[in-house]
Amino acid sequence: MKLNNSLIEQDELALFLDYYELTGGKADFDHKNRDIITETFFFRKVPKHLGSYMIAAGLEQVISFIMNYRLSKKDGGWLKKTSGKDFNKDFLAYLENFKFKGDVYAIPEGTPVFPNEPILSITGPSIDVQLFETYILNVMNFQTLVATKASRVVNAAKGRTVLEFGARRAQGRDAAVLGARAAYIGGSVGSALVLAGKKFGIPYVGTMPHKFVQERDSEISAFREYAESFPHNAVLLIDTYDTLQGARNACTIGKELKAKGYDLKGVRLDSGDLFMLSKKVREILDFEGFKDTKIMVSSDLDEYKVNELVEKGSPIDGFGVGTRLITGANYNSLTKEGEVSALGGVYKLVEIKKEGKVIPKIKISEDIEKTTLPGKKQVYRIAESGTYSHDEISMWEELPPQGAKPLLVPVISNGKIVYDFPKLDEIKRRCGAELALIPDRYKKISGAETYPVKLSDRLSKLKQDLIEEAKSIERTIQK
Amino acid sequence: MKLNNSLIEQDELALFLDYYELTGGKADFDHKNRDIITETFFFRKVPKHLGSYMIAAGLEQVISFIMNYRLSKKDGGWLKKTSGKDFNKDFLAYLENFKFKGDVYAIPEGTPVFPNEPILSITGPSIDVQLFETYILNVMNFQTLVATKASRVVNAAKGRTVLEFGARRAQGRDAAVLGARAAYIGGSVGSALVLAGKKFGIPYVGTMPHKFVQERDSEISAFREYAESFPHNAVLLIDTYDTLQGARNACTIGKELKAKGYDLKGVRLDSGDLFMLSKKVREILDFEGFKDTKIMVSSDLDEYKVNELVEKGSPIDGFGVGTRLITGANYNSLTKEGEVSALGGVYKLVEIKKEGKVIPKIKISEDIEKTTLPGKKQVYRIAESGTYSHDEISMWEELPPQGAKPLLVPVISNGKIVYDFPKLDEIKRRCGAELALIPDRYKKISGAETYPVKLSDRLSKLKQDLIEEAKSIERTIQK
Repeated sequence: MKLNNSLIEQDELALFLDYYELTGGKADFDHKNRDIITETFFFRKVPKHLGSYMIAAGLEQVISFIMNYRLSKKDGGWLKKTSGKDFNKDFLAYLENFKFKGDVYAIPEGTPVFPNEPILSITGPSIDVQLFETYILNVMNFQTLVATKASRVVNAAKGRTVLEFGARRAQGRDAAVLGARAAYIGGSVGSALVLAGKKFGIPYVGTMPHKFVQERDSEISAFREYAESFPHNAVLLIDTYDTLQGARNACTIGKELKAKGYDLKGVRLDSGDLFMLSKKVREILDFEGFKDTKIMVSSDLDEYKVNELVEKGSPIDGFGVGTRLITGANYNSLTKEGEVSALGGVYKLVEIKKEGKVIPKIKISEDIEKTTLPGKKQVYRIAESGTYSHDEISMWEELPPQGAKPLLVPVISNGKIVYDFPKLDEIKRRCGAELALIPDRYKKISGAETYPVKLSDRLSKLKQDLIEEAKSIERTIQK
Repeated sequence: MKLNNSLIEQDELALFLDYYELTGGKADFDHKNRDIITETFFFRKVPKHLGSYMIAAGLEQVISFIMNYRLSKKDGGWLKKTSGKDFNKDFLAYLENFKFKGDVYAIPEGTPVFPNEPILSITGPSIDVQLFETYILNVMNFQTLVATKASRVVNAAKGRTVLEFGARRAQGRDAAVLGARAAYIGGSVGSALVLAGKKFGIPYVGTMPHKFVQERDSEISAFREYAESFPHNAVLLIDTYDTLQGARNACTIGKELKAKGYDLKGVRLDSGDLFMLSKKVREILDFEGFKDTKIMVSSDLDEYKVNELVEKGSPIDGFGVGTRLITGANYNSLTKEGEVSALGGVYKLVEIKKEGKVIPKIKISEDIEKTTLPGKKQVYRIAESGTYSHDEISMWEELPPQGAKPLLVPVISNGKIVYDFPKLDEIKRRCGAELALIPDRYKKISGAETYPVKLSDRLSKLKQDLIEEAKSIERTIQK
């Protein structure tokens, strides 16, 4: 019997879209819509408990998708068969011979970004550009969420080690793998998930399971067996029974290791009052001569708890963060307030080129926050005396503000990759370096200020003009 | 340049584990640990805003993983190279020749389950059984979360159609696919994600994008073009500009369709006050003679909002539910209270067979809720006058309570599959039928009562005895 393990295969990715992208595309195709359009991906806001900035992540997977987009013959046949009368041969042939020939500009992965800034700007035939929507939103929303969360935990840890332990609570297997990638970009330095090591070269790390201790007659014999197997790398889990007795047992084993020329690398606490226990465990370790043995903690941590532990002076060397990191929990564990954990990034039409004429597009909403910025745009980041002071979103063809650097860079030009994709460690470094240039008041764990993002005069005027125009059309309709 | 799209391949799944499962396994291997152990997967509680029951889901993917578990030579080489001195040839050879020969019992997918009930019970060599932990937790936690959420939305919809629209906000690609599967088990009847159709035969559905309307000179010409391409299947999106004008435009196109012998299938609202708008749109449709045209709505829905819309008598035929379904949001959109969206399912050692002797194991926690139930267990569900009255968790070998049915069934026996895996539609039917037997008071959207789960006398006594034993050991240590 063949069990369905449901892993996604590369050659079926062309079906990773919402059905309306295909129906819209087919109706475009039927009516010979040859418009060249631009759609942009952006976030309208940062979720309440996640601060003021986000860390862009997911570009490499998005570009791989776009460059490889093509419906397999097999999936074309399946679609024809299962879609009833929805599709004809011609449109499916178009998808089976698909090759994206347009342009993509993007803000590089690892860059801090703010609400309403275009992170991806994609230009090409109307039929083509819409096919990427679901995939872009899926990959960018999730990885950006986790990279953002990770950077907050790392900020809170103030130089202490942050490890990602989330695979068991990630939303599916891909979320564990992509989440490990995004967390690493955001600043964690290792993952418990071995597969993340293979996929991305992320250091994989681990201690020992509670089960290993429970299965032995005593904790100390479990520690001893473990240390015999990993004398060079013994991190002992000391909270299975009584944490302080566990610390004393770890010292006993530490002395045995010393006698063989090894050091006790660390102990791990996974429950209880981490502040109080870490202080007492540190005392025990120091008293027994294990000043270099590290204390690692885990247990429903997030940036709020890490911040509290650090501020209180807990002698903790490293934090293992699981559920709340890998799900990008939009939750404050101290106030116990939370909301839905998802970034609501959107992919919206901003410009149409119809028979040579450029028409900027706006989507107006009663909720003014949801009204989109029209036209093809660039984002400039302006520095003053060594730190970033504000961003400016301007029309694509405008001159940059003095001394400003453009954030959107060319990635695909006429269907060809023109971007040198950085290695993951490079993306991680970029993230750290760029965040360092953003003043602390925008990065506070609680109560971060809103970073100023201005619109250029031209963009601001265009937006107002289009809103006025829409209102006047509405008045005409209502007459 | 080769871009890393990071899809997980079947032959690398043996690396889908937390590193401590490998270090624990290796230390077991080094010390010739030949214990036969049982670990069980269960949930300690239902998250606050998700009611009182959960819908078990994910078994098929878990069993596929276990049956295929084997480290590839390539990955073995990679592990040896990257793990420093942690692994030797012998242990890697063991993993490269791995074949699970133990037993798995499970509660079938689609079954309502309650806190502390073993959903999976896995017996085999200590080294082997621990390797499955991360994968089991990952797949079961997520799919059970989404199936549970879906069943709540479907309950709230009281017979109206529920569609899953979540791919764009799912946490990665796998979450979109597995989430569509789980939502379908829980009762949704279609997904926007086309790939979910291919993977599982789930009906894929969609209307038209806002972009399609924005790109045309007028809404009515957009509707006309769309209806020309899909005369048999026209669901028009009427909220791009003004929803009521959109409804009137839809009627104009509906009449054109009628003239050609087709019906206007439906309209969709994606914003605004859905109660008020659906009433007015229904009036317009009815007045113009489109009594059979359906009204579909979407826009940040969850079971709380759906319940409210249904209770108020909104003339809505179907709900498209996205973000909050696919992420299993542990959030009440009416009170705006929320917590972390993850099920905290765990996989714990409950029994060791050492040299023929069976030793039940307990993990004690200061938090009494976190103390595990020892030993290998069965769950019985007891019916009274046509509905389920309560469950009883008992020791594996105990006689069942009168007239009770056991929930855990054999799935793998001595390494061979002995279970006839049902098709997805069968799992979905099971879910609906079993839920129907659970009294309404346990299924309320808000304020659901706790379903009674009792422990058998023997289990209860064993638990107390082991707690006492642990306390007396603790007292000895503290002396």
